[in-house]
Amino acid sequence: MNQRLRAAVVGAGYWGPNLARNLHASPDWELATICDLDPARAQRVADRLGGVSITQDLDQVLADPSIDAVAIATPARTHHPIVLAALRAGKHVMVEKPLADDRNNGLEMVREAQQRGLVLMADHTYCYTPAVLKIRELIQEGMLGDILFVDSVRINLGLIQPDVDVFWDLAPHDLSILDFVLPGGLDAATVAAHGADPLRTGKSCVGYLNLPLAGGAMAHINVNWLSPTKIRQMVIGGTRRTLVWDDLNPQQRLSVYDRGVDLALQSKGSADSTASNVSYRLGDTWAPALQETEALGSVVTELADSIREGREARTSGTSGLRVLSVLEAASASLRCSGAPSPIAATEITEPTLAGATA
Amino acid sequence: MNQRLRAAVVGAGYWGPNLARNLHASPDWELATICDLDPARAQRVADRLGGVSITQDLDQVLADPSIDAVAIATPARTHHPIVLAALRAGKHVMVEKPLADDRNNGLEMVREAQQRGLVLMADHTYCYTPAVLKIRELIQEGMLGDILFVDSVRINLGLIQPDVDVFWDLAPHDLSILDFVLPGGLDAATVAAHGADPLRTGKSCVGYLNLPLAGGAMAHINVNWLSPTKIRQMVIGGTRRTLVWDDLNPQQRLSVYDRGVDLALQSKGSADSTASNVSYRLGDTWAPALQETEALGSVVTELADSIREGREARTSGTSGLRVLSVLEAASASLRCSGAPSPIAATEITEPTLAGATA
Amino acid sequence: MNQRLRAAVVGAGYWGPNLARNLHASPDWELATICDLDPARAQRVADRLGGVSITQDLDQVLADPSIDAVAIATPARTHHPIVLAALRAGKHVMVEKPLADDRNNGLEMVREAQQRGLVLMADHTYCYTPAVLKIRELIQEGMLGDILFVDSVRINLGLIQPDVDVFWDLAPHDLSILDFVLPGGLDAATVAAHGADPLRTGKSCVGYLNLPLAGGAMAHINVNWLSPTKIRQMVIGGTRRTLVWDDLNPQQRLSVYDRGVDLALQSKGSADSTASNVSYRLGDTWAPALQETEALGSVVTELADSIREGREARTSGTSGLRVLSVLEAASASLRCSGAPSPIAATEITEPTLAGATA
Amino acid sequence: MNQRLRAAVVGAGYWGPNLARNLHASPDWELATICDLDPARAQRVADRLGGVSITQDLDQVLADPSIDAVAIATPARTHHPIVLAALRAGKHVMVEKPLADDRNNGLEMVREAQQRGLVLMADHTYCYTPAVLKIRELIQEGMLGDILFVDSVRINLGLIQPDVDVFWDLAPHDLSILDFVLPGGLDAATVAAHGADPLRTGKSCVGYLNLPLAGGAMAHINVNWLSPTKIRQMVIGGTRRTLVWDDLNPQQRLSVYDRGVDLALQSKGSADSTASNVSYRLGDTWAPALQETEALGSVVTELADSIREGREARTSGTSGLRVLSVLEAASASLRCSGAPSPIAATEITEPTLAGATA
Repeated sequence: MNQRLRAAVVGAGYWGPNLARNLHASPDWELATICDLDPARAQRVADRLGGVSITQDLDQVLADPSIDAVAIATPARTHHPIVLAALRAGKHVMVEKPLADDRNNGLEMVREAQQRGLVLMADHTYCYTPAVLKIRELIQEGMLGDILFVDSVRINLGLIQPDVDVFWDLAPHDLSILDFVLPGGLDAATVAAHGADPLRTGKSCVGYLNLPLAGGAMAHINVNWLSPTKIRQMVIGGTRRTLVWDDLNPQQRLSVYDRGVDLALQSKGSADSTASNVSYRLGDTWAPALQETEALGSVVTELADSIREGREARTSGTSGLRVLSVLEAASASLRCSGAPSPIAATEITEPTLAGATA
Repeated sequence: MNQRLRAAVVGAGYWGPNLARNLHASPDWELATICDLDPARAQRVADRLGGVSITQDLDQVLADPSIDAVAIATPARTHHPIVLAALRAGKHVMVEKPLADDRNNGLEMVREAQQRGLVLMADHTYCYTPAVLKIRELIQEGMLGDILFVDSVRINLGLIQPDVDVFWDLAPHDLSILDFVLPGGLDAATVAAHGADPLRTGKSCVGYLNLPLAGGAMAHINVNWLSPTKIRQMVIGGTRRTLVWDDLNPQQRLSVYDRGVDLALQSKGSADSTASNVSYRLGDTWAPALQETEALGSVVTELADSIREGREARTSGTSGLRVLSVLEAASASLRCSGAPSPIAATEITEPTLAGATA
Repeated sequence: MNQRLRAAVVGAGYWGPNLARNLHASPDWELATICDLDPARAQRVADRLGGVSITQDLDQVLADPSIDAVAIATPARTHHPIVLAALRAGKHVMVEKPLADDRNNGLEMVREAQQRGLVLMADHTYCYTPAVLKIRELIQEGMLGDILFVDSVRINLGLIQPDVDVFWDLAPHDLSILDFVLPGGLDAATVAAHGADPLRTGKSCVGYLNLPLAGGAMAHINVNWLSPTKIRQMVIGGTRRTLVWDDLNPQQRLSVYDRGVDLALQSKGSADSTASNVSYRLGDTWAPALQETEALGSVVTELADSIREGREARTSGTSGLRVLSVLEAASASLRCSGAPSPIAATEITEPTLAGATA
Repeated sequence: MNQRLRAAVVGAGYWGPNLARNLHASPDWELATICDLDPARAQRVADRLGGVSITQDLDQVLADPSIDAVAIATPARTHHPIVLAALRAGKHVMVEKPLADDRNNGLEMVREAQQRGLVLMADHTYCYTPAVLKIRELIQEGMLGDILFVDSVRINLGLIQPDVDVFWDLAPHDLSILDFVLPGGLDAATVAAHGADPLRTGKSCVGYLNLPLAGGAMAHINVNWLSPTKIRQMVIGGTRRTLVWDDLNPQQRLSVYDRGVDLALQSKGSADSTASNVSYRLGDTWAPALQETEALGSVVTELADSIREGREARTSGTSGLRVLSVLEAASASLRCSGAPSPIAATEITEPTLAGATA
């Protein structure tokens, strides 16, 4: 129905081919070109899609008025200059996680997009999986009640990255999911980070984050490159129900437990007593059916929708910035032996893009 | 062969009946009496054992020269006076966890026992399960290599205790196990504790401990009273192998993974490079067979053996004291929003009892 | 409220102590005596209950007019004479599985009870577990729709019985459960049994039963003494939903899957075509909460209720007889290399006891 | 090193693209052409491989002297004419399972290949997975001892096939694996098949096979299209150890249990007694590491190797024929309500191809 938007993919390494494939397959998009400094690499991606044009010249891509958006999958340290150039050329932008390698850079990118009324979308792919979309919906519907605790474990025998520690490598997934599903987003004021580098690699290979949330709740994230077993599990405890997401169990990824502690505080006559009545619910468990769809397909749809509707993407640059803010604060906490470190507020009002361009 | 030792059980509430049953069934022990302020409660325990004598009078028990040892299962706040009285009456003592409700009290108990050359044993029952005994053995044999990280999860929908938080309620199990299996015992210098009390009970119901260990390793403990699912799992990662203890999987409680990261640091000519060669082992998994024996039977055997051999018990008062030291430091850390808190050294040399009495 | 009924337990070996304990604890029952040829064995059981009278003399028990019912846990080959004697003495009877060691004996017992208007209850304990009671309820409510298939697996490293094969040892559990939960009870007309005796023990150690059910459905039972892993699982597939009972998963014993194949047969114009429209439902999974109660407590309650209400017990002698009929037919099939063998109809109308005594 | 052999793929539907991709990627093969009656379908496959020639004309393929082998992935009913034509044109042949839709056709194909000294390979892909290759190796090394029982479960919510029942659709996997790993191959003399068609589709949707093996052992296969849960598990019990293959558990696909029953038969003096001493081993469990390689890559390597070495392929046409023989006997058993049906002997000596061509 809609005319197709035209996109360029920049970066044909690990993630770019997936972006290219999904843009190519989408009814919303025409994949205009694949841009990489290494033309052979770009060509291999193009061939598998039955022949898309390629280029080494980013300036040419940005100068092409027929291109609406640029999807960027280059190394994190290059996000800042490429994104700014694209925005300044009037292109909408989607950028792989993390948004930038530095919070200030991320902030500049977000401001640039807002001033120009352009979409800057963070490619937080996990947020578009059927499981996470369902979690967000269940929390919004009040199925879980108030959130009491969140426990996320993402451990595996993993590649020890040359340039980033385990926090910057793995925790963006958990943080972006929390930002997506929690009612108020990722609004923790401080974070405490504990890391271990027992192999003396010069960076944390095992890490734990503690984020106190509003109302006495706590989010905890455990990331680990050295675990022989692979676990990807998030538990979200609420006053009404508790949800367990076990991403490696395709037969039952989500379980919602109607179990918990009910606490009825009673004020008694005597001054010193806040007698408490504790009772336990041991109700049914429910595992909602989930479609098996590829999250990246929903990502490129959301990019098109946000451009057409003149609104922020559901995983906006600002959400990418909130993730960066936590990571920077975590690094600061690490340098202080785990003492809690304040998280910089994003201090950015999120106007509608229409408002921004007015 | 040996003449039986004679024991009294003090406290017939939750744990006392188990002590009584195991002492009664042991070839090492004669169960002399069961002492409780509530004679009906003591009588019910005695009846189930086919008629053991009971008493309300602790002084009478301690004055009885035929009694060698006292096994104490009273509330934690009463451990200090009862244990001191028993030691001063010349009795060997075993006391339920935690050793005391306060580190100074524990210290006084340990010193009293050492000065008198008496056994003061902490009833760290978990340490005598076949799984934990095997873990200790495997680590001592070097099967795991150097320890890189320990991750212990003990979560469940649990009773919210009236007097203690989730750390004091559940973490003594994990801490006493670590003290038992780690080559140097529980020798962390600091602990950071993060707790959450989202139900406003006045105490932490969800808790995390981070204990940096020697050599850059890290122990992490997660305890939680609010989890709808029950997990009791400990992962011990080593340079050679990694062990997973899943206590709720009777078919395969222990798994030893010959998987891991091998890191060969190479010094290159250039100044700035510490090039690293990382490789991955993906070897076999091995699940050692374990007997299904009751741990408490081995506890009472160890009590008898340590008395007869004039040595500290394998889970000595000092190990109970180390657990207390961590718990007190954790409480201090909690009061400081999770900033790491120093753990008091136990500063007690552990002479052989024979040496102490010399 | 009701006056207590008085019961004697006959047989103090493996199962008798459990019967005695539950009768002793029940508000419906007074445990009058424990009868065993070996008085020491009876005494041990009596002691653990705080002193119940014991006897070696069954005749004396049966002659005691104050005793209402006899619960029999003696070897299977003795069930027939003891049950008949008890019924002829006017006692209600509960008897451990299998009802008898021979179908004709079982039939005589059932007839005797009916003629005398006495309760003859089969102690099919599994039927009174919370899981099986819930399965029966769900099927009766139509939750599963029409039954399509039943698959029951009961395998373990098991005791090789001296006198019975794996079918007679283990399959009575599955068969009695099927008789209890299926809408029409265990109404198969034939059974095919395949057994293996690879260790040359003289009897089947591995066995499979196939029971064609009404409407084209099939029940299949797999029993095995030689399996290194323990599985106790039953799948009941229905047109509307499918239920999986995993008895070794206390966290989720029952799962009800709203998944299945929907088949809409359409008659088309052309003569030869029964074109079929197949579609798949992939709906939610639901795990009903179950209480953790001891089944045997419900067994003794049902015995009391059926006596007081003058009705057959829910696991009646007739249901025990249906189990026997299948086992005998299975043995016949085994002797014919697995050819299907007809199952003797129980041919017993089940009058209310009130009717029988009229 | 070797010159590449040249292959054509015939059939570009479901499985053909996988064959094409693996032949294309193999250092042993040059993919000469893709042949399909639907040129658009063939072209799509060719495009994804960066441009392979396509054709609709099978005769032309077979007339091309540069082509060494033909890999056939067409519907089962077409295997017979295409394979015979290819063999008569002097081509080596690999054919998707099942070998043919009829045992006589399969027999004719096998004879034709043997007379011509050509390789006829059954594409039993599962046999080349790392798990099955390891199982074969472990059995050959005697790790399991003598085989006591085999239990294979392959159930899932599956496509109800228009032309075949659940036995012909799924059991070829299990049967070809048994033929591959058992010391004597699939040498059962009879098979009993029990099927259910509770949805009235006109064919069995739930099925069970019982195959008595030599020495009193038994193989049992359970296939099911109606199961809401997916299980792919095979247990192979042996006198020394028992192996469990759980193909859906990537973390531990193979487990070898050193558990079992040890039976020492003793002849006693008395005539009636064959007293048995039964004991139980409860030893360690071991999970061998497995590579994660694509089985089909090993399939095309084996095809090349068998051609070059002038020998039968490890999954030869004869093994495909043994699978067919069991399936035909199973269909006969089904028609007789599950009475055991004799399996036609393959009666084909397996000469080396070199011998055949001599």
